[in-house]
Amino acid sequence: MFQEPHKFTGKLFIVEGIDGSGKSTQLRLLHSWLEAQGYPVFMTEWNSSQLVKQTTKEGKKKKTLTPTTFSLLHATDFADRLAYQILPPLKAGMIVLADRYAYTAFSRDVVRGVHPSWVRKVYDFAVKPDLAFYFKVPLPIAIERILSGRAKLKYYEAGMDLNLSHSLEESFKIFQGMILKEYDRMIEEFGLSVIDATLEIQEQQEIVREIVAENLKGFSTKRRNYAKRNKVFWRRFAIPENRRA
Amino acid sequence: MFQEPHKFTGKLFIVEGIDGSGKSTQLRLLHSWLEAQGYPVFMTEWNSSQLVKQTTKEGKKKKTLTPTTFSLLHATDFADRLAYQILPPLKAGMIVLADRYAYTAFSRDVVRGVHPSWVRKVYDFAVKPDLAFYFKVPLPIAIERILSGRAKLKYYEAGMDLNLSHSLEESFKIFQGMILKEYDRMIEEFGLSVIDATLEIQEQQEIVREIVAENLKGFSTKRRNYAKRNKVFWRRFAIPENRRA
Repeated sequence: MFQEPHKFTGKLFIVEGIDGSGKSTQLRLLHSWLEAQGYPVFMTEWNSSQLVKQTTKEGKKKKTLTPTTFSLLHATDFADRLAYQILPPLKAGMIVLADRYAYTAFSRDVVRGVHPSWVRKVYDFAVKPDLAFYFKVPLPIAIERILSGRAKLKYYEAGMDLNLSHSLEESFKIFQGMILKEYDRMIEEFGLSVIDATLEIQEQQEIVREIVAENLKGFSTKRRNYAKRNKVFWRRFAIPENRRA
Repeated sequence: MFQEPHKFTGKLFIVEGIDGSGKSTQLRLLHSWLEAQGYPVFMTEWNSSQLVKQTTKEGKKKKTLTPTTFSLLHATDFADRLAYQILPPLKAGMIVLADRYAYTAFSRDVVRGVHPSWVRKVYDFAVKPDLAFYFKVPLPIAIERILSGRAKLKYYEAGMDLNLSHSLEESFKIFQGMILKEYDRMIEEFGLSVIDATLEIQEQQEIVREIVAENLKGFSTKRRNYAKRNKVFWRRFAIPENRRA
């Protein structure tokens, strides 16, 4: 399923990159631009489903997660969001924007120690995005952005479970470097659209918009038949919205 | 990993079968018999890890589980138990008895609609059991045993999520029949040891013990070097024990 283009009427655009690559900023800018043009847009974030939120939180707190359970919990989160947040708007002809997608698992989980082909197979139920942007940034720049803007790194975020270093900051650097290598390997494998994340924010956004505009040729900006039953339509989407609260 | 015999010093014996096949009774009898002979035994049950317990419970209550999330949650539970309950005693030379194993997922989840090869791949991290008993029972006998002894069938237990019937009991019958067919298909695929579950309890147990005794030839009944550091050893096992409470 993940290898072939989906057949839904909507569009799925996703962004990937290591922490500090600026991908979320770019996605927000894309979001505003698409909405300004009248496109119906739905946003979804990695690891945000209500279903496994508590479990992931407790597992992280107790530090009992193994690479496999860590990976499976994220896959469960993803499967839940796919069913309730990604597929419904996609089927309804909306543009779905995802901050991180299966590729995050393919990089992080593999660095944690699961087999590359295993985790790819686990996510086989996923839908192939119409566009997958990879914000490529040199490690020192990303590290600088993260460490200057954040209070404290978390245990799993820094990859402390991998015993790379006793220092949170040092472990984070090594961990992010390993993830970066996995991303680079995936560019060709999945045909990721590489964006130079060292460029100015506006420069990057222009490139992104150009690629998106090309992909949206022939895609209608008009809301479709569901616009006539606005109430029912939004009631359906009230579910995932509330679950994220 | 799941295809090849494991290399640990312990033994892993598992039982499978539809609800009402009598497999749990047989496993308990085997447990007593093995302990009476001085073997160190550790028992583990399907869907019993503390990690995803709450999530599974709530997902079932709200009826929001999809076939994929249902399957992934059970795989997470299994991966957690494998890491904390199955592998440590197996490595320590104990006999691990498991009430249901990956085959339960291969039957139930496939009936729910996930792809047979996908779910097999998801469980690829599992350890191949030394013996896998399949308690084969005709559907009417199993149904009779379950319906006569239980207060009320639960929604997912009865497969109500599959829309097979509006009646819990009718749905349960169809669901169990479908699962039975999946089990039958797996006998050859995984070399399951088939036990005729229509025989008397003691008759079945004699057959089981004979097969187990044959498998245990050359396996020492003595507790090994860890007996000398009893305290440390049991402290390690106190973790999974408490998590199940």
